[in-house]
Amino acid sequence: MAAGTAEIREDTAPEKTRTRLLTTALRLFTEHGVEGTSLQMIADALGVTKAAVYYHFKTKDEIAEAVAEPGMRELAALVQEGLKVRRRGAQIDFVLEGFVDLVVRHRSLVALFSSDPGIARALERGFHTSVDMKEGLITLFVGEDPDVSGVITAHVLLTGLALTGGAPTLADLDDETLRASLLEVGRKLLGRRARRIC
Amino acid sequence: MAAGTAEIREDTAPEKTRTRLLTTALRLFTEHGVEGTSLQMIADALGVTKAAVYYHFKTKDEIAEAVAEPGMRELAALVQEGLKVRRRGAQIDFVLEGFVDLVVRHRSLVALFSSDPGIARALERGFHTSVDMKEGLITLFVGEDPDVSGVITAHVLLTGLALTGGAPTLADLDDETLRASLLEVGRKLLGRRARRIC
Repeated sequence: MAAGTAEIREDTAPEKTRTRLLTTALRLFTEHGVEGTSLQMIADALGVTKAAVYYHFKTKDEIAEAVAEPGMRELAALVQEGLKVRRRGAQIDFVLEGFVDLVVRHRSLVALFSSDPGIARALERGFHTSVDMKEGLITLFVGEDPDVSGVITAHVLLTGLALTGGAPTLADLDDETLRASLLEVGRKLLGRRARRIC
Repeated sequence: MAAGTAEIREDTAPEKTRTRLLTTALRLFTEHGVEGTSLQMIADALGVTKAAVYYHFKTKDEIAEAVAEPGMRELAALVQEGLKVRRRGAQIDFVLEGFVDLVVRHRSLVALFSSDPGIARALERGFHTSVDMKEGLITLFVGEDPDVSGVITAHVLLTGLALTGGAPTLADLDDETLRASLLEVGRKLLGRRARRIC
């Protein structure tokens, strides 16, 4: 009966239910898009009532924001830390490595964030800084006042690395291999030499 | 009254209504996602009844397939033509230039196709060859039996060029500038030297 007891405990602890709810919501958002996922679908997948979902979140948009929050917070921290690095080459390497690492650790979320108009809109409402953050990343990658070619390079880098990191067809690839390959591609795009990783 | 007469003529020609319907559907799919767009929304945006939409298409999935059809047909033709090019370097250049050109001419559609789970599913149903087509493109870009690094490079190339070509923030960029910049980035990723375009 140990497993059953653990189940009940998990269901009665609001924080754990919240975590399960966000994990389930991310999976459903990935499968159906944010707009194609209802609060009822999330409740059904969790085996709880819609009222139990309402206890944690009043709207689907609140759920979308909460799903994206940890990744967005880490991305904002990466941009802030990146701005402090003085030497330009080291700065590019720092932000590229941080971005790739973030993409790999949040594979599903990054894919959803890069692709779903529903979550993109939720994020615009929830995080007024998300446009600034993208601008910040582009600046860190290709410098202040980049020309068109620089903007396009940064764009291909951000979207290409994110979408590839979250690609369902590459889901079987282990994190370490994915991380190394994405870094290699990123360095090539930014004209950085490959570094030996120990 | 000339404009009014033209309006009425357009509304009474089924082929023109079909074209308007597909243009409107693409716009709504881009704004709300395929799952977030209803037949009623398409009818309202066109200023016609839902019955008028049903005259052309029985389901939203049929509309999604019809929206994507011209781009998919061109992409299939590009892969077929690419396979006929014998010299490897010329083959890569041919397919890269064709892909970039296709992305630029179908900017909205490519962005939607790369990002929306709804249209991706509709395409899987409508075009059983779409997985083969992606495999075909990857093979043309990085050769038969590519290693992980090659697959990741091709993936970043396909998703990065497509998403950047369709990026709303770059919508003001003219086609020619976008085409030249995407080509430059693609060549860098594939290790092809820049060519002078006359």
